[in-house]
Amino acid sequence: MTSSAPTPTTPQNGEPGKTTLGVAAIGYAFMGKAHSNAWRNVASYFDVPAFEQKVLVGRDAEQVAEAAARYGWSESATDWRQVIERDDIHIVDICAPGWMHAEIAIAALEAGKHVLVEKPLANTLAEAEAMTDAARAARARGIQSMIGFNYRRVPALALAKELIAEGRLGTVRHVRAAYLQDWLVDADSPMTWRLNKETAGSGALGDIASHAIDQVLFLLGDTVTEVSGRLHTFVDSRPGADGPEQVTVDDAAWATLTLASGAVASVEVSRMATGKKNSLTMEIYGDKGSLLFDLESINELGFMDATVPVREQGFRRILVNEPDHPYMDAWWPQGHVIGWEHTFTHEIRDFLVAIDAGTPPSPSFEEGLAVQQVLAAIEESADAKSAIIQVAGH
Amino acid sequence: MTSSAPTPTTPQNGEPGKTTLGVAAIGYAFMGKAHSNAWRNVASYFDVPAFEQKVLVGRDAEQVAEAAARYGWSESATDWRQVIERDDIHIVDICAPGWMHAEIAIAALEAGKHVLVEKPLANTLAEAEAMTDAARAARARGIQSMIGFNYRRVPALALAKELIAEGRLGTVRHVRAAYLQDWLVDADSPMTWRLNKETAGSGALGDIASHAIDQVLFLLGDTVTEVSGRLHTFVDSRPGADGPEQVTVDDAAWATLTLASGAVASVEVSRMATGKKNSLTMEIYGDKGSLLFDLESINELGFMDATVPVREQGFRRILVNEPDHPYMDAWWPQGHVIGWEHTFTHEIRDFLVAIDAGTPPSPSFEEGLAVQQVLAAIEESADAKSAIIQVAGH
Amino acid sequence: MTSSAPTPTTPQNGEPGKTTLGVAAIGYAFMGKAHSNAWRNVASYFDVPAFEQKVLVGRDAEQVAEAAARYGWSESATDWRQVIERDDIHIVDICAPGWMHAEIAIAALEAGKHVLVEKPLANTLAEAEAMTDAARAARARGIQSMIGFNYRRVPALALAKELIAEGRLGTVRHVRAAYLQDWLVDADSPMTWRLNKETAGSGALGDIASHAIDQVLFLLGDTVTEVSGRLHTFVDSRPGADGPEQVTVDDAAWATLTLASGAVASVEVSRMATGKKNSLTMEIYGDKGSLLFDLESINELGFMDATVPVREQGFRRILVNEPDHPYMDAWWPQGHVIGWEHTFTHEIRDFLVAIDAGTPPSPSFEEGLAVQQVLAAIEESADAKSAIIQVAGH
Amino acid sequence: MTSSAPTPTTPQNGEPGKTTLGVAAIGYAFMGKAHSNAWRNVASYFDVPAFEQKVLVGRDAEQVAEAAARYGWSESATDWRQVIERDDIHIVDICAPGWMHAEIAIAALEAGKHVLVEKPLANTLAEAEAMTDAARAARARGIQSMIGFNYRRVPALALAKELIAEGRLGTVRHVRAAYLQDWLVDADSPMTWRLNKETAGSGALGDIASHAIDQVLFLLGDTVTEVSGRLHTFVDSRPGADGPEQVTVDDAAWATLTLASGAVASVEVSRMATGKKNSLTMEIYGDKGSLLFDLESINELGFMDATVPVREQGFRRILVNEPDHPYMDAWWPQGHVIGWEHTFTHEIRDFLVAIDAGTPPSPSFEEGLAVQQVLAAIEESADAKSAIIQVAGH
Repeated sequence: MTSSAPTPTTPQNGEPGKTTLGVAAIGYAFMGKAHSNAWRNVASYFDVPAFEQKVLVGRDAEQVAEAAARYGWSESATDWRQVIERDDIHIVDICAPGWMHAEIAIAALEAGKHVLVEKPLANTLAEAEAMTDAARAARARGIQSMIGFNYRRVPALALAKELIAEGRLGTVRHVRAAYLQDWLVDADSPMTWRLNKETAGSGALGDIASHAIDQVLFLLGDTVTEVSGRLHTFVDSRPGADGPEQVTVDDAAWATLTLASGAVASVEVSRMATGKKNSLTMEIYGDKGSLLFDLESINELGFMDATVPVREQGFRRILVNEPDHPYMDAWWPQGHVIGWEHTFTHEIRDFLVAIDAGTPPSPSFEEGLAVQQVLAAIEESADAKSAIIQVAGH
Repeated sequence: MTSSAPTPTTPQNGEPGKTTLGVAAIGYAFMGKAHSNAWRNVASYFDVPAFEQKVLVGRDAEQVAEAAARYGWSESATDWRQVIERDDIHIVDICAPGWMHAEIAIAALEAGKHVLVEKPLANTLAEAEAMTDAARAARARGIQSMIGFNYRRVPALALAKELIAEGRLGTVRHVRAAYLQDWLVDADSPMTWRLNKETAGSGALGDIASHAIDQVLFLLGDTVTEVSGRLHTFVDSRPGADGPEQVTVDDAAWATLTLASGAVASVEVSRMATGKKNSLTMEIYGDKGSLLFDLESINELGFMDATVPVREQGFRRILVNEPDHPYMDAWWPQGHVIGWEHTFTHEIRDFLVAIDAGTPPSPSFEEGLAVQQVLAAIEESADAKSAIIQVAGH
Repeated sequence: MTSSAPTPTTPQNGEPGKTTLGVAAIGYAFMGKAHSNAWRNVASYFDVPAFEQKVLVGRDAEQVAEAAARYGWSESATDWRQVIERDDIHIVDICAPGWMHAEIAIAALEAGKHVLVEKPLANTLAEAEAMTDAARAARARGIQSMIGFNYRRVPALALAKELIAEGRLGTVRHVRAAYLQDWLVDADSPMTWRLNKETAGSGALGDIASHAIDQVLFLLGDTVTEVSGRLHTFVDSRPGADGPEQVTVDDAAWATLTLASGAVASVEVSRMATGKKNSLTMEIYGDKGSLLFDLESINELGFMDATVPVREQGFRRILVNEPDHPYMDAWWPQGHVIGWEHTFTHEIRDFLVAIDAGTPPSPSFEEGLAVQQVLAAIEESADAKSAIIQVAGH
Repeated sequence: MTSSAPTPTTPQNGEPGKTTLGVAAIGYAFMGKAHSNAWRNVASYFDVPAFEQKVLVGRDAEQVAEAAARYGWSESATDWRQVIERDDIHIVDICAPGWMHAEIAIAALEAGKHVLVEKPLANTLAEAEAMTDAARAARARGIQSMIGFNYRRVPALALAKELIAEGRLGTVRHVRAAYLQDWLVDADSPMTWRLNKETAGSGALGDIASHAIDQVLFLLGDTVTEVSGRLHTFVDSRPGADGPEQVTVDDAAWATLTLASGAVASVEVSRMATGKKNSLTMEIYGDKGSLLFDLESINELGFMDATVPVREQGFRRILVNEPDHPYMDAWWPQGHVIGWEHTFTHEIRDFLVAIDAGTPPSPSFEEGLAVQQVLAAIEESADAKSAIIQVAGH
């Protein structure tokens, strides 16, 4: 008898008698790398149904093969259509560019696959609506879908959501959301597809205001009825391959949102905020308390409890690393902080658990569509000299 | 011969052969107290022309007498018209409510007195214009005038101004200004004259957005060409003496400002930001650097120099308490921080020095008017569903 | 009848029938300037007995006359012995160098004057003991005395004291006190009397560790039974008038203090902490909560309440500017922060109120002596290779 | 031709013609979990030689099998002696308790395996010396060894090391190191093996002061010549299975270290610092600049450059997340912060690269021994009433 025992090689986790879920991911760039990390690690920390990292899909056969090996996928492939038809694939994780989301997601849902799609849901409102219809139809057949607003899974923001839901802020009135980056500060940095409206849909608005708006909706559990918006391009021409090219998307965006509850939220985003690297900030002011958050300090939540005596009131810095905090009992002892990519691990965990339980995960495509509708209304307002516009459905 | 020598009792400072400037202050509430402190102390720290704290003027004879004694004025009086006619009064410092500014300031200027008036310049644009005309006319006769945007004299903001003027931020593009307070959070706090449009002119807009807008103009040396604005009253009825009364001013305001330079500034103010006590924040993003400021940390300036190697870039916290910093050689050794009221001492110092030199002090009434014009445009935009409005003169 | 009324010129405050207290201050350098500011302003903010800023005393007749005029004193003088004998002087405020404290204080007390003396109480333990004896004897005759550990009057530290006294920290165990400055970093900065043991007594130890130790005693209401100490001079020779001179005091000091309660405190001070300008930090860890303070952020107190649920625990930043906070109802509305020199105004206020009430003010000379005894024990331990030493009286 | 291609299943990375390194890890508790995470992920981010996660070793067969499956190991085993003899094992990663380090490490080195051992090197100085001898002998045979002071691989601290080595701080004089936690605050929390000197060696001293001292040595590239130390147990009895048991290790420790360079460092550690969760702070003060670090804000480094004009000096907060920063080009775009466990991934990366290159990795066992010698001297000093003690070899 030997002293060592082989580890069951597959799946990464699981219970006897359950189907092992085969996963295919489409895309291996920034988001593909982040999602792969989550798939590779989620079962080491969380109890999730059995799954396998089956196939990584990309356009360049050589590169996707290398990425698959590097990121822990058993196979690589170049044709997503073939992959979504495979019987051993149950989950499709879409990390491809926004303009491909609708086609892949709808096809995958129709093929009976659970679908996770990166944000934003789509580049156009029409696509987003078609995806939502497909998701609704699939859900009726037990097929789940989810949009990847990963910041909902930041433990500090999940804690914020809990505190608000418990009434700790009282009536929320004034909300400030901002997302500031600085990677376009240099006017000589070159033109890219991200700065072209044809390929990118929009600029800072779709890329980062979408996160900020989703947080407003998520944290408050509220809806936006009307908006005033403004878009601006500070550097409207950048060096292209053959001379200067026109930048056709926004570098920065501003909006005020009227919420159904009566609260008002401001949203401000920029890729020109020198020194701000990835600063999604949320400020939520209620009549009994307030919350502050900055993504650059991802492990911290600021909480002001206005119900304690004035003498001892103040914003407290909660280090959201206790076993009592959302998701944190899976990781390390208190004070051993986590990083940005952990939010995807939490997202995949919740997605897998929902599939296992047969309950629709959140945020749904409908929730993704709601964000798209607000973005569309902001663009419409911006085109109308910032005049207030009703959001679709309100 | 005795070993002790009497101190020349008056004036508080001065050179032989110069007239001692007689000062009258009108108003002894919050601002009157702050200005009195400045008059009482300025000559102990700065070299200023000789002056005397002659008369404090207020409506209630008994109360103003007590305030005069407490705050260091030689006399008290109840009739400002008599006081501004006195030959021994050379300076009139107007700390009365905004609706009284125009009448007093114009009369004083016409009586040949130098005038310092608290912000905002006036409650209406028409009054502000009349005051500006009077100031211009008086200036031609050597009579000086100034509006008291005291935050221009926060050493950290004066340093910010210097750094921007020296080009340390490069081209400024994106500016964020906010002024957040929380003294109206309680929906049961009673109705006051400050919440009535008749008496107060506006709410958070005139009271605190004026400061934020003045800082944008001051720091950038720029002008506003157009605005989009929004006003909101979260609690529109409050307990009055005889039951609920209507709140007719804004609790919060939002605006985006287009600047002549091409920069865009957002302005957001609130009296409902629970936990924010007096938080005027300025964020100035240029293509070579950025600045951050928060009035609650009045001795600090955040500076990001984007021209140093990326590896060592970061917002630095400058403790603005060195002899090299504006106004600071007059006070204490490094690290011995100053407070809020010192800004008035600096203001009075600059006002006195300008009078002595015969050079117009800044901010002038024209500068105060420029702020009023932006405020008026924001109100107009708010009335027009936030549609962009040209600012008067642009 | 005229519309204006003269303000009673003297005293700065007061009730009918009470003697107006005549004040003499000795010294017009850094501390003299700070104390003068306090005397000049205290009656504008606080209800205090009537007093007059009578005489400022200094060695240079011309300079002291100028300082007296600038700082609001009626007369100047050069002979402190004459001044303390004057019948119209009731209070002597000693801002002279440490080696003069004992002689002046004892003479003034024996002359029946109330005495305020700047810290440290004296340069030697023997002098401190003699002063304490004199103070005790004078107190029996109704003559009050106080040592000016002004940081006891920082509102944030006064609030800290209240919270600890109320049991909000539970049992205090671990205390960290530090006072870091950087004004001696440059090895070429010249030799001064402050760096010579003959004139200065000690270096960072007496100058700033004294403050840190006083805070430990003040905040905890505890006594030190034994210490281990270490002193170090990083730059032991500096340019003098005639070539290099030996630095004979410490640049930095370290100590651990055993407290009677069982708590242990560390004390660490330096004049070589580049970038730290005036950073007195206190960290108090109890079994129910903790406090953090940094003098560079004088308006803030960090408070961690470990009795709330773990999920929402965190250090809260209390902006100590509410009317409910110690001393703060006298100043400005919430969030309008105060500065360093206000601590002296509070000190003078408490001193005057105690004199008026006939109750001994705190910190007494005995309390000053207790600090001196700890400093002496640290020096003794440092001389004994850091071996633990009993503090006198324990 | 199919559109999908299988990923080469083993090894996790590698070049053709090179042996794939077989790895065995011993221990699957806290450190085993952290190391496993690093092995599982390192090849996804860094270019490392080919390796396989072969065997996880633990005492409980069932539990170690489950851990192996969860953490990505091919096999599990219970007998480490058998495992280290296997030909397919080339690397032994020791995450077992400190008292087992010496035996396993020496046996593994003698068996020709590269060894990584968690800190502290050993529980006793004698064991540490034996291990160092074994490492030296093995190194001569091309067998590498390393001790896992993972905080050397925090990018912010690696950057700090670079800046100091480049002379950016000038002459370093005053260093403050602290490591504060609060998991023993509750006096009723039960007795454990960690609080017993027999099993744990020491308390906070060995557990966390070791990290702080290693950072002093690492950052300064210096050695400790003498120390004064103090240990204290605030709660000396805790509930055991059969009633109160004696706590025989320290809850807190203090030391001052004399460095060969002339710098002086203080070290202060505690498990009683309520509200501090995992706060390793380093403050390094040189005559040209300073650095600040707090492990609770792991992505940030404070840097004060005292060579820029005084007017613009201040501690800058460098968000150490740029591709230019140590280790960071492997991860995410700027501002997408990393967490605590990434330090182990960096450690394993450096270990593998060193093995591949045949160059001794750092920190070596000799470096681990140096830390042990300082810890031993602190204990000796604490036993001698804090009197200064020479460190072994000095």
